[in-house]
Amino acid sequence: MDFVLLIDQFSQARDIRGWSRQRVLHECLREAIRSGKLAAGTRLPASRALALELSVARNSVLYAYDQLATEGFTRPDRRGTVVMSMCAVAIAPLAAPPLRAALSHRSGGVRVLTDPGGLTSGFAPGMPALDEFPVTVWRRMLDRAWRNTRIDLLNYGDPSGEASLRAALADYLRAARGVDCDPGQVFITSGTQASLDMCAHALADAGDTVWIENPGYAGARAAMQAAQLEIIGIPTDAHGIHPAATDWQHHRPRLIYTTPSHQYPTGSVLSLERRLGLIAGARAAGALIIEDDYDSEFRHDGPPLPAMQGLAPDAPVVYLGTFSKTMFPALRIGFMVTPRALAEPLRAWLTRSAHGGRSAEQLALAQFLRDGQFALHLRRMRRLYRQRRDALVAALELHMGFAGSVHGGSAGMHLAFQFHEARLSDTALSAQALEKGIVAPALSAHATGAGANGWNGFMLGYAQVPAPQIDALVRGLAMLVHEAIAGLKKP
Amino acid sequence: MDFVLLIDQFSQARDIRGWSRQRVLHECLREAIRSGKLAAGTRLPASRALALELSVARNSVLYAYDQLATEGFTRPDRRGTVVMSMCAVAIAPLAAPPLRAALSHRSGGVRVLTDPGGLTSGFAPGMPALDEFPVTVWRRMLDRAWRNTRIDLLNYGDPSGEASLRAALADYLRAARGVDCDPGQVFITSGTQASLDMCAHALADAGDTVWIENPGYAGARAAMQAAQLEIIGIPTDAHGIHPAATDWQHHRPRLIYTTPSHQYPTGSVLSLERRLGLIAGARAAGALIIEDDYDSEFRHDGPPLPAMQGLAPDAPVVYLGTFSKTMFPALRIGFMVTPRALAEPLRAWLTRSAHGGRSAEQLALAQFLRDGQFALHLRRMRRLYRQRRDALVAALELHMGFAGSVHGGSAGMHLAFQFHEARLSDTALSAQALEKGIVAPALSAHATGAGANGWNGFMLGYAQVPAPQIDALVRGLAMLVHEAIAGLKKP
Repeated sequence: MDFVLLIDQFSQARDIRGWSRQRVLHECLREAIRSGKLAAGTRLPASRALALELSVARNSVLYAYDQLATEGFTRPDRRGTVVMSMCAVAIAPLAAPPLRAALSHRSGGVRVLTDPGGLTSGFAPGMPALDEFPVTVWRRMLDRAWRNTRIDLLNYGDPSGEASLRAALADYLRAARGVDCDPGQVFITSGTQASLDMCAHALADAGDTVWIENPGYAGARAAMQAAQLEIIGIPTDAHGIHPAATDWQHHRPRLIYTTPSHQYPTGSVLSLERRLGLIAGARAAGALIIEDDYDSEFRHDGPPLPAMQGLAPDAPVVYLGTFSKTMFPALRIGFMVTPRALAEPLRAWLTRSAHGGRSAEQLALAQFLRDGQFALHLRRMRRLYRQRRDALVAALELHMGFAGSVHGGSAGMHLAFQFHEARLSDTALSAQALEKGIVAPALSAHATGAGANGWNGFMLGYAQVPAPQIDALVRGLAMLVHEAIAGLKKP
Repeated sequence: MDFVLLIDQFSQARDIRGWSRQRVLHECLREAIRSGKLAAGTRLPASRALALELSVARNSVLYAYDQLATEGFTRPDRRGTVVMSMCAVAIAPLAAPPLRAALSHRSGGVRVLTDPGGLTSGFAPGMPALDEFPVTVWRRMLDRAWRNTRIDLLNYGDPSGEASLRAALADYLRAARGVDCDPGQVFITSGTQASLDMCAHALADAGDTVWIENPGYAGARAAMQAAQLEIIGIPTDAHGIHPAATDWQHHRPRLIYTTPSHQYPTGSVLSLERRLGLIAGARAAGALIIEDDYDSEFRHDGPPLPAMQGLAPDAPVVYLGTFSKTMFPALRIGFMVTPRALAEPLRAWLTRSAHGGRSAEQLALAQFLRDGQFALHLRRMRRLYRQRRDALVAALELHMGFAGSVHGGSAGMHLAFQFHEARLSDTALSAQALEKGIVAPALSAHATGAGANGWNGFMLGYAQVPAPQIDALVRGLAMLVHEAIAGLKKP
């Protein structure tokens, strides 16, 4: 076997630009074995000899031989390396119709999650101040978790989540949000989207009715659509979701998705009266409320409002939370708290249908909670986000106060700016802003169904925007709004 | 305010066993604020004074005050700590019908994933030898990834996966499995189940037909069911999936799920002839083959069989893999390789519908691959699994050779033991074995539809069973089989 020739032929027949010598040798020998050029039983030359013949470093040959052995193409014996037999795999390309290069129809119109705004600046909602996250502390927790790793931490794990994290969460939620639960009611998920998928499939059947706020969170709409639930948009005003008597009568819900602490996207806070009304209505209708408490840890003014889940004993509420906003999005850990009666059935369903895992990360997070690091981080972020909120509100009042009003700025990581002039198109303005490199999502783009119940303006996330940058960004938006209003006045 | 009395009343009214003093104080004050007993505007005593009054350590009081401030129930000012106003949340339990404590109908009969066999010994399939995983090396990789963490590693990330991991995988798969792909065709998922859900939703519409091997993988069946596909079970024999002409004519598939390297559960290896036939048939039918290559890295005898995906140019194959078996299950990282034409549509769909994340873990894994650590680990595991396979085959031939024959032992982490006597009930024997603490899943329990095409016996995973333990476990199974056969002979 003339290996020099073999390599030459191989190199001519394909594009090897950028390939290392050892890769060329490895893939060349492998192809030769596959095609039968190097027949089964052939003994390959000693590495030193082949290196000499090919004028390459011996290490390159050793690498190639090592790879072939790992892949099973050769077998080492006492005297060297022997080629294993291969079935013939050089086959003529089948004359065939081109691949049906299309996804399913149903994958077409689903889900538009908020663009995290990678190459733009401005007000992408739901983005925490990532440069402020204590990575060093987190690494320490992670390392500690791994140091204590026993074998079962590598295993599939409890699909409901690690016990220590569920317990730490139960304690935290009880204290911080008035959520009334045992660890057994807490389920760890890979984030809000996964929690919503779980609710939509495990708590409702295809064709069941789900209420979603209008305007409302597109991710919830997508999850419910994917689960084939009947979506009814319920108007949201300045005090939150506002179902009418006819809604209860004619569109009896199985699930009610709501964001009571800080409505997404308008920022409205659901009043106590409406919370109690919703709970009473849900009870009467046999419905479950999905309370998505996504950014409730950040309250800038006024008293904390405890979760709906804890407002009444055994409330028909499934409480959702996420660490994407309070820790960092890449962590991909969220949670659900179910009513007591559903805890065991859901646990059983999960055991049948899902794998656990990510045990070390969950343990690290549990420790992060227990050690008080989470509370410390939140305290710092609250101060920071309040500063940034203040800067945004000031800039809006200064530059755009004539054009609309701020809403929903008392909590969370975003607020709404509602235009006074109904003829302005928030979607058009949002698109223009994006062209200028400023992310400013339109409120009406979050409509559930036709029309966003009169909401028309910007949804502005501020948590990740340094206060000194805010004024200039708002001025940029204000210019567009000015022009648009001037345009309306033309005959 | 008499704080001693307040604490007393609080402690009487609930079960505070196991509570620390600081927790009692914190929760007592919090409840008093919520209920209005401590009215808005009330100034709490200085910590030293309260500690004296309650005869507790000052630190306990500081802890409680700190918690209350963090939660927003109090606000610090120049002179101390002031109670914030709370809306009244003590409400009478609503007289109401009990919570409809049931999951959806559709959550009832879904998915039976293999029991990892926590408290039992024996032959749970798909369990790698976790005590052999190089945790120290992995921790080093993880730490290196975190040390290099820039802010964008904390962010939502590319839903298709980190570029470095997709590239490392593309190189690895090309070399090890003959998979023909660019990094753009590689998608990182949270494991096989997630990959299957993705295929089922993005590549097929409700009502489309999917072929699943019979007997076959229950997880695939569950994913297809959840996506409302029409499932047709295709017989599997000693050479793998075997569709008849009538199947192509009367049950034209959109998707074909198959495990050609090592059929799950029978261990059959799909012959080259059948592979080519399946590809040709899929092309003609406009179908996509889902090739689940779950344990192909472990080949004990004979030549490696390259993936179907690479057998023909632009083959209509979606190739699935997982790191659960080669790394560890808790990692929760798997992958899909799509045909070129589907890569961009799928990427766009994912961008609209999913978040990325787990960036540090993905980078660590990419490094683990590039540094050769993965190949090294696989090499060790191949040797180990071959030993264990040998011990199992020997024990089966010795103790149960009269009752059946070994099948599918040339690769992977499990094999099948097929009974000669058709009147034996593998499900009954499997249940009896479980009572003895030996996991030995029944082949026929994996039926897709009615009847498992004649397969009747045990599915025995051996990767995690130390060789010295195998003989005794097999003897335990053999005893049950003996008794069952003897029972058949009775008049």
